[in-house]
Amino acid sequence: MRDVAVIGIGQTAIGEHWDTSLRALGAQALRSAAGDAGIEMPEALFVANMLAPRLSNQTHLGTLLADHAGWRGIEASTVEAACASGGVAFQVAVRSVASGMIDVAAVCGVEKMTDETTSSITTALATASDADYEGAHGASFVALNALIMRRYMYEYKIPHPVFGSFSINAHKNAVNNPNAMFRKAITQAVYDRAPMIADPINLYDSSPICDGAAAIILCPVEMARELGKPIIQVLASTSATDTLALADRADPLALDAAVQSAKRAYDRSGLKPANIDLFEVHDAFTVMAALSLEAAGFAERGTAPYRAQEGEYALNGRLPISTMGGLKGRGHPVGATGVYELADLVTQLRGEAGANQVAKAEIGMTQNIGGTGATVVTHILSRVA
Amino acid sequence: MRDVAVIGIGQTAIGEHWDTSLRALGAQALRSAAGDAGIEMPEALFVANMLAPRLSNQTHLGTLLADHAGWRGIEASTVEAACASGGVAFQVAVRSVASGMIDVAAVCGVEKMTDETTSSITTALATASDADYEGAHGASFVALNALIMRRYMYEYKIPHPVFGSFSINAHKNAVNNPNAMFRKAITQAVYDRAPMIADPINLYDSSPICDGAAAIILCPVEMARELGKPIIQVLASTSATDTLALADRADPLALDAAVQSAKRAYDRSGLKPANIDLFEVHDAFTVMAALSLEAAGFAERGTAPYRAQEGEYALNGRLPISTMGGLKGRGHPVGATGVYELADLVTQLRGEAGANQVAKAEIGMTQNIGGTGATVVTHILSRVA
Repeated sequence: MRDVAVIGIGQTAIGEHWDTSLRALGAQALRSAAGDAGIEMPEALFVANMLAPRLSNQTHLGTLLADHAGWRGIEASTVEAACASGGVAFQVAVRSVASGMIDVAAVCGVEKMTDETTSSITTALATASDADYEGAHGASFVALNALIMRRYMYEYKIPHPVFGSFSINAHKNAVNNPNAMFRKAITQAVYDRAPMIADPINLYDSSPICDGAAAIILCPVEMARELGKPIIQVLASTSATDTLALADRADPLALDAAVQSAKRAYDRSGLKPANIDLFEVHDAFTVMAALSLEAAGFAERGTAPYRAQEGEYALNGRLPISTMGGLKGRGHPVGATGVYELADLVTQLRGEAGANQVAKAEIGMTQNIGGTGATVVTHILSRVA
Repeated sequence: MRDVAVIGIGQTAIGEHWDTSLRALGAQALRSAAGDAGIEMPEALFVANMLAPRLSNQTHLGTLLADHAGWRGIEASTVEAACASGGVAFQVAVRSVASGMIDVAAVCGVEKMTDETTSSITTALATASDADYEGAHGASFVALNALIMRRYMYEYKIPHPVFGSFSINAHKNAVNNPNAMFRKAITQAVYDRAPMIADPINLYDSSPICDGAAAIILCPVEMARELGKPIIQVLASTSATDTLALADRADPLALDAAVQSAKRAYDRSGLKPANIDLFEVHDAFTVMAALSLEAAGFAERGTAPYRAQEGEYALNGRLPISTMGGLKGRGHPVGATGVYELADLVTQLRGEAGANQVAKAEIGMTQNIGGTGATVVTHILSRVA
């Protein structure tokens, strides 16, 4: 097994890219990452995408993007696990390089959601849940998360305004990120007065529908040294699964897959939560940020919203999260999100996060969540001298 | 890098499974393969599927099948490259085991096509081609293959009846396969009088729309020895890509990705075409069987249909192909096909093919093709004492 390093990252701004095609978005991120890595062409490309088969009438996206990036002939495929697609695609790339069968691999998360009607997008997003037992009954994806949030509020007796701290932090961090969708800070009053999406999830509890692409280049650590690149090593790449249907879980607030995925990552790396300097959390909804923090061992159950309120997760707090805006502020192009999380983490570990730079950023973690916690991928990366 | 072996296979019959759900089909194949391997639970599952997001409103299929097979908690994802999905999913599994990060991996190819209208299925299949430059103009997938076949007939001056040899052979071999969709031999006269689908592709030039699932269990060779299982070793797992759009290729009959994919497999294994005892070819259309045979070095360009006519590809011929019926006779549940090809090859290498057993079956090859040759995955497997 070879150690694996990230040697290049690239991303497009997240937004409503009505004048840029799916393939152009993906190729733009890939060329940018290849330029950053200083490589001509990878041997394999793993594309993370969830919605193109429905919203763009396009399967076979791995091969299409390989060609459009100028790399006709290389290996290519698409890897999907709903909103955890980016995380699993990166994991597959890590293993391909670790196996010795591939030296240089590229990962591209890409999603184009805004060309279609809201109804089509909502229906497409619902395919991440159990089609026969949830989707067929008309439960939208926001509605399922609303059930979780309502239960969390009841179980731990936490009033709605407390969750606003996650959103306020994310929006604040997005202001300085040129690739973020919402470069606009919000206040508690704005959060409290936001229109309801699916009670109790309001506009600011929820990440946006958007377009974007992010890419990463990987190679063995020893090759990275020869290239003279900064070494950002992958210390752990682990995942775990749960039921797709929320009703099938014994404890809908436990997020078992996140617990297991994090445990495997700590076991693999020999680290514990206290060793993690920053955490790119999957804040698709404010309650998901809380559950992920608690499942990964960063907070006792039922306490994460209060810790957020106390500033623990701010850039200068004990464990900075969503440091470039997170899913809420930067944006959540679903299949691409896991790759954005990793690219943002690499930016921090390299010390290139500008005004948002976390002071001590040596070891960082990402958690990428598919469905209502059905697939969870955890990565721990570290800067190596 | 660890050597990897197949230790279990399972498959459902291919047909119109209107009374069996997508998840039930997949779980049935997986449980069967796990039973064959004698294992309780793999650590990771890679699902190959192309059409569930559109035809079953279901993404996130890897995790759903892990749960439904009784393996809640394991790693899971979906790998897609149109009709080459099965091949790329198997490749990702091989690398995961080779990397040392996973010991026991499962692969499941599953597709459920027949629940929807022909119009929906045709539109969904067209997503394998270039959505913006082919699909948007109304070119169905059969229509694109018809362009290739017409060109082949013109270029090499081969009359239509000669192609029938591929179909007659496939149907003959399917008769003894209990999992085949068409257990019915056909004659040249039946082929010649078949209704036209997209001129010059007639009903018997084309594989059927169908449902089915096949599964494979993989582990390191040394672990297979400890388990006392027959060792079917993966000698090469390679792939290559081309343009999605047919019009972008300099030579539409060259099947460049198949040439490169096969070349890489020969390089990796140190073998050449003459060493291959049998070949599970991707005969989605008769012309594709010819192009694949020629690209892989088994026939000069423009000669494969005549070689088929001369019996070279029959069970007792020089290079048996489609030994259990192929895509034409066994069936072509698109995302699952690559896994069926591999399962059929393993059946032959184990000497368990019954009436269809190839006399000398020590080293075999599969070629799994996505789109009109845009993604091609080649595998070489061998029985090891």
